[in-house]
Amino acid sequence: MHSRTLSVEPVTKDTDRTEFRRRLAQELRVDSIRASDAAGSGHPTSSMSAAELMAVLVDGHLRLDFEHPHDPRNDHLVFSKGHASPLLYSCFKAAGAISDEDLLSFRRIGSPFQGHPTPVLPWVDVATGSLGQGLPVGVGLALAASRLDHAPSRVWVLCGDGEMAEGSIWEAFDHASFYRLENLIAIVDVNRLGQTGETMHGWDLDTYAARARAFGWEALTIDGHDVEAIEDALTRAEQSEGPCAIFAKTMKGRGVAEVEDLPGKHGKPLSDPERAIEELGGEHEIHVEVAKPAGDYQPPRIEAPGGQLPRYAVGDSVATRKAYGEALRALGDMRADVVALDGEVGNSTFTEIFRDAHPDRYFEMFIAEQQLVAAAVGFQRRGWVPFAASFAAFLTRAYDFVRMAAVSQANLCLVGSHAGVAIGEDGPSQMGLEDLACFRAITSSAVLCPCDANQAAKLVAAMADREGITYLRTQRGETPVIYDPGEDFFIGGSRVVREGTDVTLAGTGLTVHEALAAADRLSAEGIEARVIDVYSIKPLDIETLLVAAEETGAIVTAEDHRPEGGLGDAIAGALAEAGRPVPMRRLAVYELPGSGQPAELIHQAGIDADGIAAAARDLAHAVAGRR
Amino acid sequence: MHSRTLSVEPVTKDTDRTEFRRRLAQELRVDSIRASDAAGSGHPTSSMSAAELMAVLVDGHLRLDFEHPHDPRNDHLVFSKGHASPLLYSCFKAAGAISDEDLLSFRRIGSPFQGHPTPVLPWVDVATGSLGQGLPVGVGLALAASRLDHAPSRVWVLCGDGEMAEGSIWEAFDHASFYRLENLIAIVDVNRLGQTGETMHGWDLDTYAARARAFGWEALTIDGHDVEAIEDALTRAEQSEGPCAIFAKTMKGRGVAEVEDLPGKHGKPLSDPERAIEELGGEHEIHVEVAKPAGDYQPPRIEAPGGQLPRYAVGDSVATRKAYGEALRALGDMRADVVALDGEVGNSTFTEIFRDAHPDRYFEMFIAEQQLVAAAVGFQRRGWVPFAASFAAFLTRAYDFVRMAAVSQANLCLVGSHAGVAIGEDGPSQMGLEDLACFRAITSSAVLCPCDANQAAKLVAAMADREGITYLRTQRGETPVIYDPGEDFFIGGSRVVREGTDVTLAGTGLTVHEALAAADRLSAEGIEARVIDVYSIKPLDIETLLVAAEETGAIVTAEDHRPEGGLGDAIAGALAEAGRPVPMRRLAVYELPGSGQPAELIHQAGIDADGIAAAARDLAHAVAGRR
Repeated sequence: MHSRTLSVEPVTKDTDRTEFRRRLAQELRVDSIRASDAAGSGHPTSSMSAAELMAVLVDGHLRLDFEHPHDPRNDHLVFSKGHASPLLYSCFKAAGAISDEDLLSFRRIGSPFQGHPTPVLPWVDVATGSLGQGLPVGVGLALAASRLDHAPSRVWVLCGDGEMAEGSIWEAFDHASFYRLENLIAIVDVNRLGQTGETMHGWDLDTYAARARAFGWEALTIDGHDVEAIEDALTRAEQSEGPCAIFAKTMKGRGVAEVEDLPGKHGKPLSDPERAIEELGGEHEIHVEVAKPAGDYQPPRIEAPGGQLPRYAVGDSVATRKAYGEALRALGDMRADVVALDGEVGNSTFTEIFRDAHPDRYFEMFIAEQQLVAAAVGFQRRGWVPFAASFAAFLTRAYDFVRMAAVSQANLCLVGSHAGVAIGEDGPSQMGLEDLACFRAITSSAVLCPCDANQAAKLVAAMADREGITYLRTQRGETPVIYDPGEDFFIGGSRVVREGTDVTLAGTGLTVHEALAAADRLSAEGIEARVIDVYSIKPLDIETLLVAAEETGAIVTAEDHRPEGGLGDAIAGALAEAGRPVPMRRLAVYELPGSGQPAELIHQAGIDADGIAAAARDLAHAVAGRR
Repeated sequence: MHSRTLSVEPVTKDTDRTEFRRRLAQELRVDSIRASDAAGSGHPTSSMSAAELMAVLVDGHLRLDFEHPHDPRNDHLVFSKGHASPLLYSCFKAAGAISDEDLLSFRRIGSPFQGHPTPVLPWVDVATGSLGQGLPVGVGLALAASRLDHAPSRVWVLCGDGEMAEGSIWEAFDHASFYRLENLIAIVDVNRLGQTGETMHGWDLDTYAARARAFGWEALTIDGHDVEAIEDALTRAEQSEGPCAIFAKTMKGRGVAEVEDLPGKHGKPLSDPERAIEELGGEHEIHVEVAKPAGDYQPPRIEAPGGQLPRYAVGDSVATRKAYGEALRALGDMRADVVALDGEVGNSTFTEIFRDAHPDRYFEMFIAEQQLVAAAVGFQRRGWVPFAASFAAFLTRAYDFVRMAAVSQANLCLVGSHAGVAIGEDGPSQMGLEDLACFRAITSSAVLCPCDANQAAKLVAAMADREGITYLRTQRGETPVIYDPGEDFFIGGSRVVREGTDVTLAGTGLTVHEALAAADRLSAEGIEARVIDVYSIKPLDIETLLVAAEETGAIVTAEDHRPEGGLGDAIAGALAEAGRPVPMRRLAVYELPGSGQPAELIHQAGIDADGIAAAARDLAHAVAGRR
């Protein structure tokens, strides 16, 4: 560690404002270098380019009460270029929110000052570090602030120029102007250099600005090291009648000859930090008073007159996607905090039922699944309970956003319809066949797949109360209602829907009904199959499965999903982990399907009653033979 | 089925060209309606809007030899709006490539005329139907045609206006202009209506054109039902010196009062097809002569002077990502067909080693992972063997593209570096912890995770010969070389790296070394552990695992990955399926990690030698107690 240089004269706000901001920027650079040096890794040069941008922002524009981070009037500061975390933490230090010791714990185990920002810190709204995500989440924050909370909150997003190549950035530009988000300001730190070389557009600020304008934004181009130009730009941005982007020409590693505007200096500490700090004018203890939000704020009253979940008569045929839509509408009647978003397929997912009942709490995200999930992340951060729906197949488009939402410890309800080959004629592009594997692998997730409309309705209600990422898979086709509307279902449960001791058939969603039909046939042959409805694939009701394994000695799983990572793998893994595994047959969609009628396709995949009965017959005989 | 109306006078090309094209467009509409009617589902209205656009394209602009679909001089016709498949198939019929019976098999089981186009048909380059993918794949096709094949092939992509909301479309716009793809032409069918209502921009063609121009394209706006305007636009597009987009104002369901420009008519057959066909002038057998590519074509000679895979000395420490880069460079020396792409992290993935040796076969895709994978899909379609790399975490950004690549039956080599918590200080946003689950669930996939540089090199070579989606996971940190460079490794294999009969330790990548260290400790306690290097997680070497299960009675798996869908699940599932499951402990990353040093983080997750030894001790005792 280098020694600390004491400042000769105290730097305070009484010094000329421009000079104060220049010095603050230098101090932010110094602290970025110090933090990265202490950690032995990090991105000081990517921090240094944006030092003036942040100095002016925190000194006079950002309104944030660090002591009350959840004040709805607070502005949001999102570092979409999450690798500039040293700069963010340096701002927190200058604002007095954290200590120098905190700053220097950067990247150490257990420290909340992680390599890339996460909401482990109360002033970080969303985890960033996968580029192109901060701005779309910023759209969600701005949309929630303006359209739901009606709060005077601004959303400032610091973007890198490299991440302008991510399509998700342009989804955000598109949606921000569509929703006229005048409270959203993007500050793009155009330092020209990516990780490996020059970005596609270098310092061509005009191209960036033309794109932003074509996408309906106000766009400004400035010298990002000129604090007076920054002041003007931020002021203009605050007055903009729509979203505003400031493209700032900057230099990576600005202010230190060892790294300034040089390639090959990405993502590593400076080799001579002491000298660098000297070049920057030495270390100073500069405090900036970040403005707190002012003025009264009255949260809006949202109508939630009460109501009850839909009830379906046993024996009726209802698609679980329909039950989702009707249950969500009812949930909206009962709770004022539930909101819904959809990827322009609301008449397929049936989110439209909620939309028609609660238009003020519905947000159309069009065919932009990344923005769909990102907006939901923004909504939940401001205390709303978002349900975001699309086809199960298309939700995978936003997989990296879901992964990052888990790092954000976000509470999200995601709903994927049109699961599996059972959708039929539309063919494999529309069939969600990987969703169970994908969503199971997400930290904090629950994965639900109801087989019946009453069960689906109960699970929709349960989702809204759960912390973490909760995924509901729904079916396109109708399935018979087998549960009384009075029955309760909880996340982590299962149902034994038929007793038997010769073999267990475990299904989920559609395949529960196929398993029941198979059990009827097997019974006629003298094989008594137990049938379990595994509607909660994660967490799994391991107790019920262990009892079934013990009492029947073998399990057939059937799922309208690829064989890997879904129901079969989950059960096999859990039984082995519990030390009591049994032989299994894991029926699933092994081959690439085509188009066809639903019944034809589930038969072809071997997950219909025929396939289940055949597998159960073989397995029961094999196990009986060994007993 | 409706009756066929015979044409009064024969329609041939001798009829005035404009009139011929008008009639051809009507016939394409008629056939789109007939196909959807025969299927009982489909998207006739989305087909009808683009009928004139396709009529003019196939009559005079498209150059495609239907009898030789792999002629490198052929143009490509990609329906990015894949739901307009009835129109595509109707074009094929008009061109004489398929029969009326073929057309009317639309969406039936076993028919190649699926709900959305797939390369089951020889003239379909890529599966579409997940919107926003056709244009990025078109970029790959155009890039391969111009920069690798130097062939006179044009790429025509029919886009919908709804899919302009997908960020991936703008990744394609960005890359097409960056690479000056004058052979790429996007025809955007702006029919105003999405699935549930009006798109964000309706018929605002100027906004679309301004965006395209800001992204460096030539852009034209036309009336998409005016065949003369279309002729002019296609001619101008052919002469463009860069990529060109034609935004065509059209009406969904054009020509039939029942559906024309009406909401609520998406994705369903017409209710009165007979009357609709009458409105359109009746059925006619119209044949269009699609031009064949002309002129000599000499494929370029690419230098592949020969070479050999890198060889690493046992005992050295080498990161598998480094071995990937060096092996890929060597593969490029040996094979002229290998190309590489990277998402602007080539100095981390080490694709830069290939780039520096074979710059003509390297393509920088910048921070745009969807375009990265889409370009690779385009490359392989033209016969190249693409390796596409990024961080494992960021490849998930392109998951829907990988899913669709499997539907396309594409041969892709994907490489994800920086796997797991072992990356250390950068924190969870950069840690690939879901990749094994995601890639295992892909149809046609193989999932590889080498633990040693020689093994990694051999697997890189094997990947290039494999059909399907092959995923290689590499490590950031160095691992000891344990295999002789002369050893062979094949996809689907494993290695017993230590013998033992008390318990089996199965690792992959990094955890193989931790398992070996654990086995040393266990041996000192009198527990002899067998250690298996499961470098091929899919396909799994089930024989070796069954022998180990039988002989040791219990398996501990350790993986630097989430517990779901990876190594542990794969082994548990396979053993249960084989009827011989055993108790297991599945060590994995159960909690959300933070930043820290690699050794600290793998210890915290319990996947280091300490964690493996503890689990093995417990499990061996439990199993021994039961014996």
